[in-house]
Amino acid sequence: MKIVVIGLGLIGGSMAKDLKFRFFADTIFGVDNNPVNAQLALDLKIVDEIVTLDEGIEKSDFIIIATPVNATISILPHILDKISNQIVTDLGSTKEKIVDSIKKHPKRKNFVASHPMAGTEFSGPAAAISGLFDGKTAILCDIENNHEHAVSLVKYMYNTLNMNIIEMSASSHDVHVAYVSHISHISSFALALTVMDIEEDEKNIFNLASGGFESTVRLAKSSADMWSPIFVQNNKNILTALNNYIDKLQELKILIKNHNINEIHNIIVKANRIGEILNK
Amino acid sequence: MKIVVIGLGLIGGSMAKDLKFRFFADTIFGVDNNPVNAQLALDLKIVDEIVTLDEGIEKSDFIIIATPVNATISILPHILDKISNQIVTDLGSTKEKIVDSIKKHPKRKNFVASHPMAGTEFSGPAAAISGLFDGKTAILCDIENNHEHAVSLVKYMYNTLNMNIIEMSASSHDVHVAYVSHISHISSFALALTVMDIEEDEKNIFNLASGGFESTVRLAKSSADMWSPIFVQNNKNILTALNNYIDKLQELKILIKNHNINEIHNIIVKANRIGEILNK
Repeated sequence: MKIVVIGLGLIGGSMAKDLKFRFFADTIFGVDNNPVNAQLALDLKIVDEIVTLDEGIEKSDFIIIATPVNATISILPHILDKISNQIVTDLGSTKEKIVDSIKKHPKRKNFVASHPMAGTEFSGPAAAISGLFDGKTAILCDIENNHEHAVSLVKYMYNTLNMNIIEMSASSHDVHVAYVSHISHISSFALALTVMDIEEDEKNIFNLASGGFESTVRLAKSSADMWSPIFVQNNKNILTALNNYIDKLQELKILIKNHNINEIHNIIVKANRIGEILNK
Repeated sequence: MKIVVIGLGLIGGSMAKDLKFRFFADTIFGVDNNPVNAQLALDLKIVDEIVTLDEGIEKSDFIIIATPVNATISILPHILDKISNQIVTDLGSTKEKIVDSIKKHPKRKNFVASHPMAGTEFSGPAAAISGLFDGKTAILCDIENNHEHAVSLVKYMYNTLNMNIIEMSASSHDVHVAYVSHISHISSFALALTVMDIEEDEKNIFNLASGGFESTVRLAKSSADMWSPIFVQNNKNILTALNNYIDKLQELKILIKNHNINEIHNIIVKANRIGEILNK
Protein backbone atom coordinates (compact mmCIF):
# COMPACT_ATOMS: atom_id res chain seq x y z
CA MET A 1 0.00 0.00 0.00
CA LYS A 2 1.14 3.54 -0.74
CA ILE A 3 0.43 6.10 1.97
CA VAL A 4 1.07 9.77 2.47
CA VAL A 5 1.75 11.36 5.84
CA ILE A 6 0.95 15.07 5.95
CA GLY A 7 2.93 16.73 8.76
CA LEU A 8 6.25 15.08 9.59
CA GLY A 9 6.59 15.96 13.27
CA LEU A 10 6.76 13.75 16.35
CA ILE A 11 3.42 12.03 15.72
CA GLY A 12 3.42 11.79 11.92
CA GLY A 13 7.11 10.85 11.85
CA SER A 14 6.80 8.16 14.55
CA MET A 15 3.79 6.70 12.77
CA ALA A 16 5.54 6.67 9.38
CA LYS A 17 8.48 4.80 10.89
CA ASP A 18 6.45 1.95 12.34
CA LEU A 19 4.05 1.68 9.40
CA LYS A 20 7.05 1.09 7.17
CA PHE A 21 9.02 -1.22 9.50
CA ARG A 22 5.93 -3.30 10.16
CA PHE A 23 4.99 -3.67 6.48
CA PHE A 24 1.70 -1.75 6.63
CA ALA A 25 2.98 0.47 3.83
CA ASP A 26 5.52 -0.25 1.10
CA THR A 27 5.88 3.39 0.05
CA ILE A 28 5.52 6.40 2.32
CA PHE A 29 5.20 9.84 0.79
CA GLY A 30 5.72 12.82 3.06
CA VAL A 31 4.27 16.34 2.96
CA ASP A 32 5.47 19.17 5.17
CA ASN A 33 5.17 22.91 4.59
CA ASN A 34 8.46 23.41 6.42
CA PRO A 35 11.22 22.50 3.90
CA VAL A 36 13.80 21.97 6.67
CA ASN A 37 11.57 19.39 8.37
CA ALA A 38 10.77 17.77 5.04
CA GLN A 39 14.45 17.34 4.18
CA LEU A 40 15.22 16.06 7.69
CA ALA A 41 12.43 13.47 7.46
CA LEU A 42 13.90 12.30 4.15
CA ASP A 43 17.45 12.20 5.53
CA LEU A 44 16.27 10.24 8.56
CA LYS A 45 14.52 7.79 6.19
CA ILE A 46 11.18 8.50 7.86
CA VAL A 47 9.63 8.88 4.40
CA ASP A 48 10.62 7.60 0.95
CA GLU A 49 9.85 10.77 -0.98
CA ILE A 50 8.78 14.33 -0.31
CA VAL A 51 5.82 15.41 -2.46
CA THR A 52 3.36 18.29 -2.62
CA LEU A 53 -0.02 17.88 -0.96
CA ASP A 54 -1.78 17.30 -4.28
CA GLU A 55 0.82 14.80 -5.50
CA GLY A 56 0.54 12.96 -2.18
CA ILE A 57 -3.24 12.72 -2.49
CA GLU A 58 -3.04 11.50 -6.07
CA LYS A 59 -0.31 8.91 -5.56
CA SER A 60 -1.56 7.34 -2.31
CA ASP A 61 -4.19 4.79 -1.28
CA PHE A 62 -4.35 6.10 2.26
CA ILE A 63 -3.89 9.64 3.56
CA ILE A 64 -2.82 10.37 7.14
CA ILE A 65 -3.16 13.96 8.38
CA ALA A 66 -0.70 14.58 11.22
CA THR A 67 -0.75 18.39 11.30
CA PRO A 68 -1.74 20.78 14.10
CA VAL A 69 -5.55 20.76 14.39
CA ASN A 70 -6.04 24.21 12.82
CA ALA A 71 -4.15 23.08 9.72
CA THR A 72 -6.27 19.91 9.63
CA ILE A 73 -9.45 21.98 9.45
CA SER A 74 -8.06 24.08 6.59
CA ILE A 75 -6.78 21.21 4.43
CA LEU A 76 -9.33 18.47 5.11
CA PRO A 77 -12.10 19.83 2.78
CA HIS A 78 -9.51 20.27 0.03
CA ILE A 79 -8.27 16.70 0.51
CA LEU A 80 -11.82 15.30 0.36
CA ASP A 81 -12.46 17.37 -2.81
CA LYS A 82 -9.45 15.75 -4.48
CA ILE A 83 -9.77 12.06 -3.52
CA SER A 84 -11.51 9.40 -5.56
CA ASN A 85 -11.69 6.24 -3.41
CA GLN A 86 -8.83 6.89 -1.00
CA ILE A 87 -9.32 6.65 2.73
CA VAL A 88 -8.32 9.58 4.95
CA THR A 89 -7.69 9.76 8.68
CA ASP A 90 -6.42 12.45 11.04
CA LEU A 91 -4.58 12.08 14.35
CA GLY A 92 -5.61 15.28 16.09
CA SER A 93 -6.31 15.87 19.77
CA THR A 94 -9.69 17.52 19.05
CA LYS A 95 -12.46 15.86 17.08
CA GLU A 96 -15.77 17.77 17.15
CA LYS A 97 -14.74 20.84 15.13
CA ILE A 98 -12.92 18.61 12.64
CA VAL A 99 -15.87 16.32 11.91
CA ASP A 100 -18.19 19.35 11.84
CA SER A 101 -16.04 20.98 9.17
CA ILE A 102 -16.76 18.22 6.61
CA LYS A 103 -20.08 16.83 7.82
CA LYS A 104 -21.89 17.57 4.54
CA HIS A 105 -19.02 16.69 2.25
CA PRO A 106 -19.91 14.05 -0.38
CA LYS A 107 -16.76 12.12 0.64
CA ARG A 108 -17.54 12.28 4.39
CA LYS A 109 -17.66 8.47 4.57
CA ASN A 110 -14.02 8.23 3.44
CA PHE A 111 -12.73 10.26 6.39
CA VAL A 112 -12.24 8.41 9.69
CA ALA A 113 -11.68 10.77 12.61
CA SER A 114 -9.12 9.25 14.96
CA HIS A 115 -6.82 10.14 17.84
CA PRO A 116 -3.88 8.00 18.94
CA MET A 117 -3.30 8.98 22.59
CA ALA A 118 0.49 8.97 22.68
CA GLY A 119 3.27 11.48 22.57
CA THR A 120 6.29 12.91 24.26
CA GLU A 121 7.13 16.49 25.18
CA PHE A 122 9.42 16.75 22.14
CA SER A 123 8.55 17.78 18.59
CA GLY A 124 9.74 17.67 14.99
CA PRO A 125 10.96 14.78 12.80
CA ALA A 126 14.13 14.33 14.88
CA ALA A 127 11.87 13.45 17.86
CA ALA A 128 10.10 10.67 15.92
CA ILE A 129 10.62 7.27 17.54
CA SER A 130 9.66 3.72 16.78
CA GLY A 131 7.28 2.10 19.31
CA LEU A 132 5.70 5.38 20.45
CA PHE A 133 2.17 4.01 20.10
CA ASP A 134 2.66 0.45 21.40
CA GLY A 135 0.21 -0.44 24.17
CA LYS A 136 -1.47 2.98 24.13
CA THR A 137 -5.11 3.79 23.25
CA ALA A 138 -6.44 5.02 19.90
CA ILE A 139 -9.90 6.57 19.75
CA LEU A 140 -12.08 6.36 16.63
CA CYS A 141 -14.94 8.86 16.53
CA ASP A 142 -18.39 8.89 14.90
CA ILE A 143 -17.64 5.80 12.85
CA GLU A 144 -21.34 5.36 12.02
CA ASN A 145 -20.67 8.07 9.42
CA ASN A 146 -17.99 6.01 7.67
CA HIS A 147 -17.75 3.33 5.02
CA GLU A 148 -17.10 0.03 6.79
CA HIS A 149 -13.98 -0.62 4.74
CA ALA A 150 -12.62 2.80 5.75
CA VAL A 151 -13.00 1.94 9.43
CA SER A 152 -11.43 -1.48 8.82
CA LEU A 153 -8.37 0.06 7.22
CA VAL A 154 -7.87 2.54 10.08
CA LYS A 155 -8.32 -0.25 12.63
CA TYR A 156 -5.79 -2.36 10.76
CA MET A 157 -3.36 0.57 10.96
CA TYR A 158 -3.82 0.95 14.73
CA ASN A 159 -3.52 -2.82 15.18
CA THR A 160 -0.21 -2.64 13.33
CA LEU A 161 0.86 0.01 15.84
CA ASN A 162 -0.21 -2.29 18.73
CA MET A 163 -2.79 0.17 19.99
CA ASN A 164 -5.98 -0.58 21.94
CA ILE A 165 -8.87 0.80 19.94
CA ILE A 166 -11.91 2.38 21.55
CA GLU A 167 -14.86 4.07 19.86
CA MET A 168 -16.86 7.07 20.96
CA SER A 169 -18.61 10.14 19.60
CA ALA A 170 -16.51 13.15 18.66
CA SER A 171 -18.25 15.20 21.32
CA SER A 172 -17.54 12.68 24.15
CA HIS A 173 -13.97 12.44 22.96
CA ASP A 174 -13.51 16.17 23.35
CA VAL A 175 -14.96 16.17 26.89
CA HIS A 176 -12.72 13.28 28.02
CA VAL A 177 -9.50 14.66 26.57
CA ALA A 178 -10.21 18.09 28.06
CA TYR A 179 -9.85 16.42 31.47
CA VAL A 180 -7.31 13.69 30.86
CA SER A 181 -4.97 15.49 28.48
CA HIS A 182 -5.68 19.16 27.83
CA ILE A 183 -5.83 20.51 31.39
CA SER A 184 -2.72 18.47 32.28
CA HIS A 185 -0.92 20.56 29.71
CA ILE A 186 -2.44 23.84 30.89
CA SER A 187 -1.54 23.07 34.51
CA SER A 188 2.00 22.29 33.44
CA PHE A 189 2.44 25.44 31.31
CA ALA A 190 1.05 27.56 34.16
CA LEU A 191 3.35 25.94 36.72
CA ALA A 192 6.44 26.51 34.57
CA LEU A 193 5.47 30.17 34.06
CA THR A 194 4.77 30.73 37.76
CA VAL A 195 8.14 29.34 38.81
CA MET A 196 10.07 31.20 36.09
CA ASP A 197 8.36 34.46 37.10
CA ILE A 198 9.47 34.13 40.70
CA GLU A 199 12.86 32.48 40.53
CA GLU A 200 15.00 35.17 39.00
CA ASP A 201 18.07 33.03 39.35
CA GLU A 202 17.56 30.12 36.97
CA LYS A 203 20.29 28.20 38.74
CA ASN A 204 17.91 27.84 41.68
CA ILE A 205 15.25 26.19 39.53
CA PHE A 206 17.83 23.80 38.15
CA ASN A 207 19.27 22.96 41.58
CA LEU A 208 15.98 22.46 43.32
CA ALA A 209 14.01 20.75 40.56
CA SER A 210 14.46 17.27 42.00
CA GLY A 211 11.59 17.94 44.40
CA GLY A 212 8.97 16.56 42.02
CA PHE A 213 8.90 19.69 39.90
CA GLU A 214 10.48 18.09 36.86
CA SER A 215 7.76 15.50 36.26
CA THR A 216 4.98 18.02 36.83
CA VAL A 217 6.39 20.44 34.27
CA ARG A 218 7.48 17.82 31.73
CA LEU A 219 4.51 18.70 29.52
CA ALA A 220 5.42 22.40 29.63
CA LYS A 221 8.04 21.60 27.01
CA SER A 222 5.28 20.67 24.52
CA SER A 223 4.95 22.33 21.12
CA ALA A 224 3.17 25.69 20.90
CA ASP A 225 2.22 25.02 17.26
CA MET A 226 0.43 21.85 18.26
CA TRP A 227 -1.18 23.00 21.50
CA SER A 228 -2.40 26.56 20.87
CA PRO A 229 -5.01 25.50 18.24
CA ILE A 230 -6.12 22.58 20.45
CA PHE A 231 -6.92 24.98 23.28
CA VAL A 232 -8.93 27.17 20.91
CA GLN A 233 -10.80 24.32 19.22
CA ASN A 234 -11.72 22.53 22.45
CA ASN A 235 -12.47 25.83 24.09
CA LYS A 236 -15.83 24.99 25.65
CA ASN A 237 -14.82 21.72 27.32
CA ILE A 238 -11.44 23.05 28.42
CA LEU A 239 -13.03 26.07 30.11
CA THR A 240 -15.35 23.81 32.10
CA ALA A 241 -12.49 21.50 33.06
CA LEU A 242 -10.25 24.43 33.96
CA ASN A 243 -12.95 25.98 36.15
CA ASN A 244 -13.34 22.68 38.00
CA TYR A 245 -9.58 22.48 38.43
CA ILE A 246 -9.32 26.04 39.76
CA ASP A 247 -12.19 25.28 42.17
CA LYS A 248 -10.25 22.31 43.56
CA LEU A 249 -7.16 24.50 44.01
CA GLN A 250 -9.27 27.11 45.80
CA GLU A 251 -10.68 24.41 48.13
CA LEU A 252 -7.16 23.26 48.97
CA LYS A 253 -6.08 26.88 49.45
CA ILE A 254 -8.78 27.49 52.03
CA LEU A 255 -7.86 24.33 53.95
CA ILE A 256 -4.20 25.33 53.94
CA LYS A 257 -5.09 28.87 55.02
CA ASN A 258 -7.12 27.47 57.94
CA HIS A 259 -4.36 25.00 58.96
CA ASN A 260 -6.97 22.26 58.59
CA ILE A 261 -4.48 19.40 58.65
CA ASN A 262 -7.07 16.63 59.05
CA GLU A 263 -9.10 17.66 56.02
CA ILE A 264 -5.91 18.19 53.95
CA HIS A 265 -4.90 14.66 54.94
CA ASN A 266 -8.31 13.30 53.84
CA ILE A 267 -8.10 15.09 50.51
CA ILE A 268 -4.60 13.77 49.79
CA VAL A 269 -5.75 10.23 50.62
CA LYS A 270 -8.61 10.72 48.11
CA ALA A 271 -6.15 12.00 45.48
CA ASN A 272 -3.89 8.97 46.14
CA ARG A 273 -6.60 6.75 44.61
CA ILE A 274 -5.41 7.91 41.19
CA GLY A 275 -2.42 5.59 41.71
CA GLU A 276 -4.68 2.52 41.99
CA ILE A 277 -6.69 3.59 38.94
CA LEU A 278 -3.62 4.11 36.78
CA ASN A 279 -2.02 0.81 37.85
CA LYS A 280 -5.08 -1.32 37.06
CA MET B 1 30.16 5.58 63.75
CA LYS B 2 26.83 4.58 65.27
CA ILE B 3 23.80 6.42 63.95
CA VAL B 4 20.07 6.33 64.58
CA VAL B 5 17.47 7.00 61.93
CA ILE B 6 14.12 8.13 63.33
CA GLY B 7 11.33 7.39 60.85
CA LEU B 8 11.96 4.43 58.55
CA GLY B 9 9.98 5.47 55.46
CA LEU B 10 11.10 6.17 51.91
CA ILE B 11 13.58 8.91 52.88
CA GLY B 12 14.94 7.56 56.18
CA GLY B 13 15.09 4.01 54.82
CA SER B 14 16.86 4.99 51.58
CA MET B 15 19.37 7.05 53.53
CA ALA B 16 20.04 4.25 56.05
CA LYS B 17 20.75 1.84 53.19
CA ASP B 18 23.40 3.97 51.51
CA LEU B 19 25.00 5.19 54.73
CA LYS B 20 25.60 1.55 55.66
CA PHE B 21 26.68 0.30 52.20
CA ARG B 22 29.07 3.23 51.80
CA PHE B 23 30.67 2.79 55.26
CA PHE B 24 29.53 6.11 56.73
CA ALA B 25 27.99 4.15 59.60
CA ASP B 26 28.94 0.78 61.06
CA THR B 27 25.80 0.41 63.14
CA ILE B 28 22.39 1.81 62.25
CA PHE B 29 19.69 1.88 64.89
CA GLY B 30 16.12 2.46 63.76
CA VAL B 31 13.15 4.11 65.48
CA ASP B 32 9.61 4.02 64.13
CA ASN B 33 6.36 4.45 66.01
CA ASN B 34 4.67 2.06 63.60
CA PRO B 35 5.72 -1.47 64.73
CA VAL B 36 4.88 -2.98 61.31
CA ASN B 37 7.22 -0.55 59.55
CA ALA B 38 9.88 -1.08 62.21
CA GLN B 39 9.79 -4.87 61.74
CA LEU B 40 9.80 -4.50 57.96
CA ALA B 41 12.86 -2.21 58.08
CA LEU B 42 14.63 -4.84 60.20
CA ASP B 43 13.59 -7.70 57.89
CA LEU B 44 14.79 -5.73 54.85
CA LYS B 45 18.13 -5.14 56.65
CA ILE B 46 17.65 -1.37 56.37
CA VAL B 47 18.62 -1.09 60.05
CA ASP B 48 20.61 -3.33 62.39
CA GLU B 49 18.40 -2.99 65.44
CA ILE B 50 15.08 -1.42 66.37
CA VAL B 51 15.30 0.70 69.53
CA THR B 52 13.15 3.23 71.39
CA LEU B 53 13.75 6.92 70.77
CA ASP B 54 15.62 7.37 74.05
CA GLU B 55 17.77 4.29 73.49
CA GLY B 56 18.58 5.53 70.00
CA ILE B 57 19.68 8.93 71.29
CA GLU B 58 21.81 7.38 73.99
CA LYS B 59 23.53 4.76 71.84
CA SER B 60 24.31 6.92 68.78
CA ASP B 61 26.92 9.49 67.74
CA PHE B 62 24.68 10.98 65.08
CA ILE B 63 20.89 11.32 65.02
CA ILE B 64 18.92 11.63 61.77
CA ILE B 65 15.29 12.69 62.00
CA ALA B 66 13.36 11.43 58.96
CA THR B 67 9.80 11.85 60.23
CA PRO B 68 6.94 13.97 58.84
CA VAL B 69 7.64 17.62 59.70
CA ASN B 70 4.98 17.88 62.42
CA ALA B 71 6.56 14.93 64.25
CA THR B 72 9.98 16.59 63.86
CA ILE B 73 8.74 19.68 65.67
CA SER B 74 7.36 17.60 68.54
CA ILE B 75 10.41 15.39 69.08
CA LEU B 76 13.28 17.76 68.29
CA PRO B 77 13.26 19.68 71.64
CA HIS B 78 13.13 16.36 73.49
CA ILE B 79 16.08 15.03 71.47
CA LEU B 80 18.14 18.16 72.15
CA ASP B 81 17.28 17.86 75.87
CA LYS B 82 18.67 14.32 75.93
CA ILE B 83 21.90 14.62 73.88
CA SER B 84 25.33 15.31 75.29
CA ASN B 85 27.70 15.91 72.35
CA GLN B 86 25.81 14.12 69.59
CA ILE B 87 25.02 15.85 66.32
CA VAL B 88 21.43 15.94 65.06
CA THR B 89 20.03 16.64 61.62
CA ASP B 90 16.56 16.51 60.07
CA LEU B 91 15.56 15.89 56.45
CA GLY B 92 12.25 17.76 56.31
CA SER B 93 10.77 19.74 53.44
CA THR B 94 10.12 22.80 55.65
CA LYS B 95 12.80 24.56 57.64
CA GLU B 96 11.65 27.85 59.20
CA LYS B 97 9.19 26.47 61.77
CA ILE B 98 11.65 23.71 62.68
CA VAL B 99 14.60 26.02 63.40
CA ASP B 100 12.25 28.43 65.20
CA SER B 101 11.09 25.66 67.51
CA ILE B 102 14.58 25.21 69.03
CA LYS B 103 16.18 28.60 68.47
CA LYS B 104 16.80 29.22 72.16
CA HIS B 105 17.73 25.68 73.07
CA PRO B 106 21.16 25.38 74.75
CA LYS B 107 22.02 22.59 72.28
CA ARG B 108 20.92 24.60 69.19
CA LYS B 109 24.44 24.43 67.76
CA ASN B 110 24.29 20.63 67.64
CA PHE B 111 21.26 20.62 65.32
CA VAL B 112 21.92 21.12 61.58
CA ALA B 113 18.72 21.83 59.64
CA SER B 114 18.92 20.09 56.26
CA HIS B 115 16.79 19.02 53.33
CA PRO B 116 17.86 16.46 50.75
CA MET B 117 15.75 17.27 47.66
CA ALA B 118 14.97 13.77 46.48
CA GLY B 119 12.11 11.35 46.62
CA THR B 120 9.65 9.25 44.70
CA GLU B 121 5.86 9.12 44.89
CA PHE B 122 6.05 5.94 46.99
CA SER B 123 6.32 5.64 50.77
CA GLY B 124 7.24 3.28 53.60
CA PRO B 125 10.36 1.13 54.22
CA ALA B 126 9.54 -1.17 51.25
CA ALA B 127 9.92 1.87 48.96
CA ALA B 128 13.44 2.61 50.26
CA ILE B 129 16.04 2.37 47.50
CA SER B 130 19.78 2.69 47.23
CA GLY B 131 21.01 5.61 45.12
CA LEU B 132 17.92 7.79 45.69
CA PHE B 133 20.03 10.83 46.57
CA ASP B 134 22.87 10.48 44.03
CA GLY B 135 23.37 13.65 41.97
CA LYS B 136 20.54 15.53 43.67
CA THR B 137 20.77 18.68 45.80
CA ALA B 138 20.88 18.89 49.62
CA ILE B 139 20.18 22.22 51.29
CA LEU B 140 21.74 23.16 54.65
CA CYS B 141 20.02 26.04 56.45
CA ASP B 142 21.15 28.71 58.91
CA ILE B 143 24.52 27.01 59.46
CA GLU B 144 25.92 30.16 61.13
CA ASN B 145 24.00 28.88 64.18
CA ASN B 146 25.91 25.58 64.25
CA HIS B 147 29.14 24.20 65.62
CA GLU B 148 31.55 23.89 62.71
CA HIS B 149 32.15 20.21 63.41
CA ALA B 150 28.39 19.62 63.29
CA VAL B 151 28.18 21.15 59.80
CA SER B 152 31.24 19.15 58.70
CA LEU B 153 29.65 15.89 59.76
CA VAL B 154 26.40 16.63 57.93
CA LYS B 155 28.34 17.68 54.81
CA TYR B 156 30.35 14.47 55.02
CA MET B 157 27.06 12.54 55.13
CA TYR B 158 25.69 14.30 52.03
CA ASN B 159 29.02 13.82 50.26
CA THR B 160 28.73 10.11 51.00
CA LEU B 161 25.29 10.23 49.36
CA ASN B 162 26.81 12.01 46.31
CA MET B 163 24.65 15.08 46.79
CA ASN B 164 25.41 18.65 45.72
CA ILE B 165 25.30 20.79 48.84
CA ILE B 166 23.95 24.33 48.84
CA GLU B 167 23.48 26.67 51.80
CA MET B 168 20.75 29.20 52.44
CA SER B 169 18.64 30.65 55.22
CA ALA B 170 15.69 28.64 56.49
CA SER B 171 13.33 31.37 55.33
CA SER B 172 14.70 31.46 51.74
CA HIS B 173 14.57 27.68 51.66
CA ASP B 174 10.86 27.74 52.49
CA VAL B 175 10.12 30.30 49.74
CA HIS B 176 12.01 28.33 47.09
CA VAL B 177 10.51 24.95 47.91
CA ALA B 178 7.01 26.45 47.98
CA TYR B 179 7.48 27.13 44.25
CA VAL B 180 9.70 24.32 43.12
CA SER B 181 8.26 21.48 45.16
CA HIS B 182 5.17 22.24 47.22
CA ILE B 183 2.87 23.74 44.58
CA SER B 184 3.88 20.97 42.15
CA HIS B 185 2.33 18.59 44.64
CA ILE B 186 -0.77 20.72 45.16
CA SER B 187 -1.33 21.07 41.43
CA SER B 188 -0.99 17.32 41.06
CA PHE B 189 -3.38 16.47 43.91
CA ALA B 190 -5.94 18.95 42.52
CA LEU B 191 -5.65 17.55 39.00
CA ALA B 192 -6.18 13.97 40.19
CA LEU B 193 -9.24 15.03 42.21
CA THR B 194 -10.73 17.02 39.31
CA VAL B 195 -10.43 14.11 36.90
CA MET B 196 -11.75 11.54 39.39
CA ASP B 197 -14.75 13.78 40.14
CA ILE B 198 -15.73 13.99 36.48
CA GLU B 199 -14.83 10.61 35.07
CA GLU B 200 -17.32 8.33 36.74
CA ASP B 201 -16.05 5.38 34.77
CA GLU B 202 -12.50 4.77 36.02
CA LYS B 203 -11.82 2.63 32.98
CA ASN B 204 -11.88 5.86 30.94
CA ILE B 205 -9.15 7.45 33.05
CA PHE B 206 -7.04 4.35 32.71
CA ASN B 207 -7.56 4.09 28.94
CA LEU B 208 -6.92 7.73 28.18
CA ALA B 209 -4.13 8.44 30.64
CA SER B 210 -1.37 8.18 28.04
CA GLY B 211 -2.11 11.76 26.94
CA GLY B 212 0.39 13.26 29.36
CA PHE B 213 -1.88 12.88 32.36
CA GLU B 214 0.19 10.21 34.04
CA SER B 215 3.33 12.29 34.47
CA THR B 216 1.39 15.32 35.66
CA VAL B 217 -0.40 13.33 38.38
CA ARG B 218 2.57 11.20 39.41
CA LEU B 219 3.03 13.29 42.56
CA ALA B 220 -0.66 12.82 43.46
CA LYS B 221 0.34 9.38 44.75
CA SER B 222 2.51 11.02 47.46
CA SER B 223 2.03 10.30 51.15
CA ALA B 224 -0.68 12.21 53.04
CA ASP B 225 1.21 11.75 56.34
CA MET B 226 4.26 13.46 54.88
CA TRP B 227 2.55 16.22 52.88
CA SER B 228 -0.33 17.47 55.02
CA PRO B 229 1.96 18.90 57.75
CA ILE B 230 4.26 20.43 55.10
CA PHE B 231 1.32 22.38 53.66
CA VAL B 232 0.39 23.65 57.12
CA GLN B 233 3.96 24.52 58.19
CA ASN B 234 4.84 26.33 54.97
CA ASN B 235 1.42 27.90 54.86
CA LYS B 236 2.41 31.49 54.19
CA ASN B 237 4.76 30.85 51.26
CA ILE B 238 2.52 28.20 49.74
CA LEU B 239 -0.49 30.55 49.76
CA THR B 240 1.51 33.19 47.88
CA ALA B 241 2.79 30.63 45.37
CA LEU B 242 -0.67 29.13 44.94
CA ASN B 243 -2.21 32.56 44.33
CA ASN B 244 0.41 33.25 41.65
CA TYR B 245 -0.29 29.87 40.09
CA ILE B 246 -4.06 30.41 40.07
CA ASP B 247 -3.50 33.87 38.51
CA LYS B 248 -1.53 32.25 35.67
CA LEU B 249 -4.32 29.73 35.13
CA GLN B 250 -6.87 32.56 35.05
CA GLU B 251 -4.76 34.44 32.45
CA LEU B 252 -4.65 31.36 30.27
CA LYS B 253 -8.38 30.83 30.78
CA ILE B 254 -9.18 34.32 29.49
CA LEU B 255 -6.97 33.84 26.42
CA ILE B 256 -8.65 30.50 25.69
CA LYS B 257 -12.10 32.04 26.21
CA ASN B 258 -11.22 34.80 23.73
CA HIS B 259 -9.79 32.36 21.15
CA ASN B 260 -6.58 34.41 21.31
CA ILE B 261 -4.43 31.84 19.53
CA ASN B 262 -1.45 34.16 18.98
CA GLU B 263 -1.11 35.08 22.63
CA ILE B 264 -1.63 31.44 23.71
CA HIS B 265 1.17 30.52 21.32
CA ASN B 266 3.46 33.18 22.83
CA ILE B 267 2.73 32.00 26.36
CA ILE B 268 3.46 28.37 25.50
CA VAL B 269 6.76 29.40 23.88
CA LYS B 270 7.60 31.22 27.12
CA ALA B 271 6.71 28.14 29.18
CA ASN B 272 8.90 25.99 26.88
CA ARG B 273 11.96 27.77 28.28
CA ILE B 274 11.65 25.57 31.36
CA GLY B 275 13.06 22.75 29.20
CA GLU B 276 16.30 24.63 28.57
CA ILE B 277 16.60 25.57 32.24
CA LEU B 278 16.14 22.00 33.43
CA ASN B 279 18.57 20.58 30.87
CA LYS B 280 21.42 22.91 31.75
